[in-house]
Amino acid sequence: MATLAPCTCGIDVHAHVVPENFPAYIGRSLPADWPSMAPAQPCHRHVTIAGKNYRTVSDKCWDPAKRLEDLPGMGLALQVMSPMPELLSHWMAPADAQQLLRFLNDQIAGMVVDGAGHLAGLGAVPMQDMDLAIRELEHVVKVLGFPGVEVGSNINGVPIGAPQFDPFFEACEALDAAVFVHAIRPAGMERLVGPPPLQQVLGYPGDVGLAAASVITTNLLVRRPKLRIAFSHGGGTLASLLPRLQQGWGVFPALRDAVQQAPAEQARRLFYDTLVFDTPTLRHLVASFGDTQLMVGTDYPFNFHDHTPVQRIETAGFDADTVARLVQHNAERFLGLQKAITP
Amino acid sequence: MATLAPCTCGIDVHAHVVPENFPAYIGRSLPADWPSMAPAQPCHRHVTIAGKNYRTVSDKCWDPAKRLEDLPGMGLALQVMSPMPELLSHWMAPADAQQLLRFLNDQIAGMVVDGAGHLAGLGAVPMQDMDLAIRELEHVVKVLGFPGVEVGSNINGVPIGAPQFDPFFEACEALDAAVFVHAIRPAGMERLVGPPPLQQVLGYPGDVGLAAASVITTNLLVRRPKLRIAFSHGGGTLASLLPRLQQGWGVFPALRDAVQQAPAEQARRLFYDTLVFDTPTLRHLVASFGDTQLMVGTDYPFNFHDHTPVQRIETAGFDADTVARLVQHNAERFLGLQKAITP
Repeated sequence: MATLAPCTCGIDVHAHVVPENFPAYIGRSLPADWPSMAPAQPCHRHVTIAGKNYRTVSDKCWDPAKRLEDLPGMGLALQVMSPMPELLSHWMAPADAQQLLRFLNDQIAGMVVDGAGHLAGLGAVPMQDMDLAIRELEHVVKVLGFPGVEVGSNINGVPIGAPQFDPFFEACEALDAAVFVHAIRPAGMERLVGPPPLQQVLGYPGDVGLAAASVITTNLLVRRPKLRIAFSHGGGTLASLLPRLQQGWGVFPALRDAVQQAPAEQARRLFYDTLVFDTPTLRHLVASFGDTQLMVGTDYPFNFHDHTPVQRIETAGFDADTVARLVQHNAERFLGLQKAITP
Repeated sequence: MATLAPCTCGIDVHAHVVPENFPAYIGRSLPADWPSMAPAQPCHRHVTIAGKNYRTVSDKCWDPAKRLEDLPGMGLALQVMSPMPELLSHWMAPADAQQLLRFLNDQIAGMVVDGAGHLAGLGAVPMQDMDLAIRELEHVVKVLGFPGVEVGSNINGVPIGAPQFDPFFEACEALDAAVFVHAIRPAGMERLVGPPPLQQVLGYPGDVGLAAASVITTNLLVRRPKLRIAFSHGGGTLASLLPRLQQGWGVFPALRDAVQQAPAEQARRLFYDTLVFDTPTLRHLVASFGDTQLMVGTDYPFNFHDHTPVQRIETAGFDADTVARLVQHNAERFLGLQKAITP
């Protein structure tokens, strides 16, 4: 087992933002799911969507000072913040979504400034409209200076690998923007028997796994070889699906014809976070996807977040180089930060 | 690595039957999806369902002599045969399904007789009607002498762990019948981008994973502690879902209230086959579920089957006791065959 001094050099690519307030809608017809905030217990607010309390969140969601206090204890030097996924609004009228997402992106940019080099941002774009998505991507990258964007695992039910999103990925490649794919409104909800948190607990990893599989079966990285794309929650169920996809690729001619590079090889070109809450599973991900493709992810500051993300990697039995890659260097590569951060 | 003489003592709990012919429907209104057979290339026939060629299958599906020839090469002493899942007919009018399933069960019983101790059967029951399902279960166990039944991962979209199936599981426990849960008509089809085999390749493991999760979140084994229930395809995506389910159980009070025993502990009371086509994944399943819960599964004789199921276990680096458990003894325990097979 590696014996390292605890490091505080980690980069968390999976942390979320909710603003303290949402803006008033500017337009003629208020979307039913335009979010708003309501007071809750001290230091907390209720995110209200479509008249319901979607989630009660703490002020760590919007307060950079509180986030900075927590980073060293988690072993982190840099936290990359993206919107709470339900705010991505892929289901809203495109212009309305863009109005909301522009506000979110600019809010995140303000937090980045206050973060004194310890906070970075991933923007949101209205993926339901390719032209608007590309225009917002340009704002996020060129004006705000973000390293990339967060998108849903599916856009209104269409998995992120579907060819209709090609113009967006072409623009990401051209702009050198990293893409972080987060689970959202998952498939399989009709198979869950139990309380509402099962959507996050079981639905999310399933949807991320199928999203990653869709990127493989449509050869996204064969077509866009410079694209850097990452999947939340350790790639969800992809680790379970991949050996069967690889075997099926060798057995079914139709699959062999459709998929231009071995699924197991394509999977080793995608990035993933380490947010799996389990050391044997983390080791299995490294064995499946390679030690160059995994990066710290926490889901901070939500209740269901990993409090010891770097410590888990440091104590998993990897060699020092692997630890350094998982904790820091893979994220630098994914985000395109090598020059900015490493000496 | 264990150094063992190759064994031919394996028990395959996951192999399928298609009869050479289907019976004429007896009744007033022929169900649209009543299956039939059509000639194909030598030694093959087309399974026709709802006017379409569902699958072209070889005579190994119905010919016990051909199966017996293949068993030693696969390291198998016993193969447990269940219907091709699409034949389970959970979506047919209950009485019609029972007519078809009775025919299938009796066909399998005939193959078992011809198998001279090397073939066993799992029957099919019309799970869409609890009374008929229990009546057919009694026929399968008491009259045909089968060790158990195969059921779908979902019954018309309802996952197998849902409380409405409790009467059936109560009867299984009372009759000491093993239950093998096989993927069927999976959730998440709308997330697949590619040719039709992706249903089997990606859809099946996802549905099995959610089926197993539904059994955990509804505490099936807490309520029916003697039930022996197994999941196909290595439990599908359950290995990826389980650490997150375990963590979520500790975080969300609603989940803690609903789930009466730790998910990670419940998972170690379920059985799984080893049909994952990958040695590191097999080792990960053993680490996740325990070396007492995994059994050989092949999907024989379909094209997409594991040709070296026992060899993969023998060369995976397990100790000799673990190999013996995975190859033989766990299946004996699942099937209730200890007295019949072990000395």
